[in-house]
Amino acid sequence: MSVDQEQFLTVLSREDALARFEAALFPRRPVTEQRALADAIGCALAHDVAAPIDVPPFDRSSVDGFAVRSSDLKDATGNRPARLALNGEVIACGVAPQLIVTSGTATPIATGGPVPRGADAVVMIEHTQPAGEGAIHIDRTASPGQFVSYAGSDIARGEVLLRAGTIIGSREIGMLAACGIPQISVVRKPKVAVVSTGDELVAPGQSLRPAAIYDTNGPIVSAAVSENGGIPWFAGSFPDNEAKLEAGMRAALANSDMLVLSGGTSKGSGDVSHRIVSRLGQPGVIAHGVALKPGKPLCLAVCDGKPVVVLPGFPTSAMFTFHDMIVPVLRRMAGLPPRADARVQARVPVRIASELGRTEFVMVSLVEGDDGLIAYPSGKGSGAITAFAQADGFLRIDALADQMAAGTEAEVTLFTPHVRVPDLVIIGSHCTGLDIVTAPLARADLSVRSISVGSLGGLAAASRGECDMAPIHLLDEKTDVYNAPFLKPGLELVPGYRRMQGIVFRRGDSRFEGLDARAAVKAALADPACMMVNRNQGAGTRILIDRLLGGARPDGYWNQPKSHNAVAAAVAQHRADWGMTIAPVAYAAGLGFIPFAEEHYDFALVTARKNRPGVAAFLESLRAKETRAALEQAGFHPV
Amino acid sequence: MSVDQEQFLTVLSREDALARFEAALFPRRPVTEQRALADAIGCALAHDVAAPIDVPPFDRSSVDGFAVRSSDLKDATGNRPARLALNGEVIACGVAPQLIVTSGTATPIATGGPVPRGADAVVMIEHTQPAGEGAIHIDRTASPGQFVSYAGSDIARGEVLLRAGTIIGSREIGMLAACGIPQISVVRKPKVAVVSTGDELVAPGQSLRPAAIYDTNGPIVSAAVSENGGIPWFAGSFPDNEAKLEAGMRAALANSDMLVLSGGTSKGSGDVSHRIVSRLGQPGVIAHGVALKPGKPLCLAVCDGKPVVVLPGFPTSAMFTFHDMIVPVLRRMAGLPPRADARVQARVPVRIASELGRTEFVMVSLVEGDDGLIAYPSGKGSGAITAFAQADGFLRIDALADQMAAGTEAEVTLFTPHVRVPDLVIIGSHCTGLDIVTAPLARADLSVRSISVGSLGGLAAASRGECDMAPIHLLDEKTDVYNAPFLKPGLELVPGYRRMQGIVFRRGDSRFEGLDARAAVKAALADPACMMVNRNQGAGTRILIDRLLGGARPDGYWNQPKSHNAVAAAVAQHRADWGMTIAPVAYAAGLGFIPFAEEHYDFALVTARKNRPGVAAFLESLRAKETRAALEQAGFHPV
Repeated sequence: MSVDQEQFLTVLSREDALARFEAALFPRRPVTEQRALADAIGCALAHDVAAPIDVPPFDRSSVDGFAVRSSDLKDATGNRPARLALNGEVIACGVAPQLIVTSGTATPIATGGPVPRGADAVVMIEHTQPAGEGAIHIDRTASPGQFVSYAGSDIARGEVLLRAGTIIGSREIGMLAACGIPQISVVRKPKVAVVSTGDELVAPGQSLRPAAIYDTNGPIVSAAVSENGGIPWFAGSFPDNEAKLEAGMRAALANSDMLVLSGGTSKGSGDVSHRIVSRLGQPGVIAHGVALKPGKPLCLAVCDGKPVVVLPGFPTSAMFTFHDMIVPVLRRMAGLPPRADARVQARVPVRIASELGRTEFVMVSLVEGDDGLIAYPSGKGSGAITAFAQADGFLRIDALADQMAAGTEAEVTLFTPHVRVPDLVIIGSHCTGLDIVTAPLARADLSVRSISVGSLGGLAAASRGECDMAPIHLLDEKTDVYNAPFLKPGLELVPGYRRMQGIVFRRGDSRFEGLDARAAVKAALADPACMMVNRNQGAGTRILIDRLLGGARPDGYWNQPKSHNAVAAAVAQHRADWGMTIAPVAYAAGLGFIPFAEEHYDFALVTARKNRPGVAAFLESLRAKETRAALEQAGFHPV
Repeated sequence: MSVDQEQFLTVLSREDALARFEAALFPRRPVTEQRALADAIGCALAHDVAAPIDVPPFDRSSVDGFAVRSSDLKDATGNRPARLALNGEVIACGVAPQLIVTSGTATPIATGGPVPRGADAVVMIEHTQPAGEGAIHIDRTASPGQFVSYAGSDIARGEVLLRAGTIIGSREIGMLAACGIPQISVVRKPKVAVVSTGDELVAPGQSLRPAAIYDTNGPIVSAAVSENGGIPWFAGSFPDNEAKLEAGMRAALANSDMLVLSGGTSKGSGDVSHRIVSRLGQPGVIAHGVALKPGKPLCLAVCDGKPVVVLPGFPTSAMFTFHDMIVPVLRRMAGLPPRADARVQARVPVRIASELGRTEFVMVSLVEGDDGLIAYPSGKGSGAITAFAQADGFLRIDALADQMAAGTEAEVTLFTPHVRVPDLVIIGSHCTGLDIVTAPLARADLSVRSISVGSLGGLAAASRGECDMAPIHLLDEKTDVYNAPFLKPGLELVPGYRRMQGIVFRRGDSRFEGLDARAAVKAALADPACMMVNRNQGAGTRILIDRLLGGARPDGYWNQPKSHNAVAAAVAQHRADWGMTIAPVAYAAGLGFIPFAEEHYDFALVTARKNRPGVAAFLESLRAKETRAALEQAGFHPV
């Protein structure tokens, strides 16, 4: 990597970029293909379809009974029933009548049978009585047309059955089948080539070499293409080699209707894909740099009539820009209407800072508050796949605003057609032990939302009534008591479980093997080459570390990640030689572990919500023998 | 067909029938299968998935810049920048660092690169300046962890990523791919065998013999199975032969997880499928006869653990019962959640009669009224495919009610997640010429809803403000003037086109060839074997017929269908020898036509809605040269 960096020279507004992109692509003649009805589900009809026949094709009986002339029954009563001679045929379904219903006669007819010549009504079998050999009595009048479904009364020959652009579902298939139409002309689904770029990418299922990550954008973009009317074709993952990548992109574009790349769009000199795009066809790049957050590095191009897109490399940026800027174009190519996104109103509980000059989209999780929905912004950045994948939707902060104030009622665009408000909302410190406690709820079809904001953030949310409970592990340094001293009015403490904190080190590191925690830290401080990994200020673990260090500031002290897992990863990957984490995490990472102190992981329960079904189920699970056994098994110690 | 008929002995309530059906099927262990991520879209996850790795797998830089020790920058300012020597490596994406960042040094690092040992923060390249060979200046402090995405901060190893039962979409695929998971265990989609029964059925695409109809239920049920998580297998259409049908049903059930038949469930003696079902396995028939309208003849069975269903033969009954009673079971077998049906409130403009003792579901079309949505009941019965296929949703009338009063605010369950209120609502008399006029609107993406209720019904709807316009063709007998005498306040007349009414007969019928209309009717009256087809009371055509007949009541006078098409079909199919219809319909049916009088087909426009975009587009189309040419071509005469 060079220190030099190009800058985005022209950053378009989101609206301008999309308008220019669409103007370069549309209008265009859709490519059509013939599909059998059963294979046409989800496709857009290419042309109007007019009914080639009447449905029903003939005047049809809608009951089991007798075809009659209504005029023969005009004086029929219970006292003086009309007697009709039966004609010598029975009209079953599929049987064409041969005989005329003349005055004084009736012909037996099944539901769906064609009404014979001469008859103008059908009498239900329940309203007739046998009247000797070959005759029936009918004791009531019949109106003309009674129980007759006339030809064309369902669908009239020549009427437009379905308009071009209609999306084919089972109901449309029913109408087409009723007219005997076996196949239809639909808009061909665009074939979208998906290419991932980056030296660091490894395909899922292969083993991860150091410094490499799994290719997330390739699979997720492919799936999103499927969901929006395209046929995805994963054309491969390419390293950042300009010649190889260009060859790959040219081959992919030649065999598809659209090319989507992810990765390689930031302006570092190693990022070559946008340069290649500019050589692929006319008019070329439409926008490179869009005033959109996340997603500024998005590159939109049209190359000889085909859309070519370079998505940002970060997963949430990639997915968000794909949905916001590419899906409209893809759906239009597929003949599909724009996504009908559902929107809800929700209150934002915290201030959200925003960058002036860029339309900012903030992923949010929704929870039910005391007076309506609350939209929690995802604390994770656009580098996180979960920021997008676990959100319920997003809210929009205008390019001219530098923040959204706490308490704002904002419009949230949902990722799914309906909000499903979770049955249990947990906001606070996350722990894998919590997954064990909530497992029975999931099996009972109770949905759980867990939002990780740390112990103090959870307490604040619980006090505001935004969750059912907050998992906390806070040590009061004055009293050496966990959690209870931090409770606020309206909250009560539910004992959870203990987690053993201790020193982690790589197995075989002779500096630590066989020592207790205090001795291990002493040994570490004695070796200037030994590097530690710390925890963030405010973490319960940090208090324990500071106690052990007794004021020392060894190398690595300022490396302060925010999670147990990050500490274990740093030690396992030689970023550090020791740190403090909990036993289950140490064991899962295959590290050596020296126990030091038990931490109390408890639940600050909102008393007013104690009797909600989700909370009751949680509390029941927490005390259940199976849950306690599973916690023990995983290295936690239920109280 | 025999005159005898079994009766439904035990009719269960809808709720009882469904509860017993589900109790006989569930709980059951779902069958699972492994699927590659890309093939798992729409499937239900079979087991909880825990994250096998941290994501990101290492502490990662989130910007292009330099990995540093934050303590080296604690005094850096613009006046006194810190000078850091560059280490001899560049950490690109995918490159594992080799060198330690010692105090006073920095290592160039790209976005996504692993933070090297010793560094605890990253400084953006924009905030640095070159400081001679192999060194940089940094003029500001850096907080520990700045621009570092710690290992596990997105997904922590061991956390439950997705719970069993989660439906896999692109977002879930993203999380699984990020963890390197290439395939997952999902609930196998149930294979559903679909069998149609009935001597009258012809497969779409084949030609229709007399008295036969196209098989509608086979294709529509198959498509609905696809839409609800099953894999449909159309096992064939069988005639009503008990031995052959039983063999077909046994083969279909043996090779599937569920069997759905349509047709053959009414209790006529020709209906054998429910008897066969009772022999297919234990416990057998659960319900035969459900207090549901439409859908009473529904038969639900469980045969050795597999659901077997006989749907009513009428398309709307079949589809409605399938969605209401079968889809819940199918989705549960597929591991899918119940359909989240959207509901809206709407006013019912007319009284709807209902049968006491049966839960009745009425298909409705929604239009926007002046104060909210209006739900128009479909005028077509359960024998009509369009009753179901063209409805927006349905409303429910309780088993204990015998009607729903006009003006009731009812809850409408939608067939789609969102209501799309049409851009133009036309209620009145339908005509295939109308399709020609509205064609340009469809191309301009303006949706048109046309509800056929006849001229007088349309005028009433227009007066109540329930539509934009009513197409009418009403002759005032006193003045011999069309339409204008019938207008009410708030309506204005927009001239439409003329339709030539005349006598239709089968070509080659020597009784009519070469005659004018009056002579033709005279000839018909002179032949006692000659049968007519009339029209319904109130139809404009009927007035013309009565004038021609001059008081005569020939054979067939009481055969009174309600549409131009039914008249043409009756003559073409020898149900009658002559009748009166409009020229385009006569020509489409291949009949001889003797012109008699021009009918005026005009539009009663709601003046207050004149400027709505849909209305404006309609009026523009009505006057357009292309529309007029197309109308002429089809046999209509624009004014």
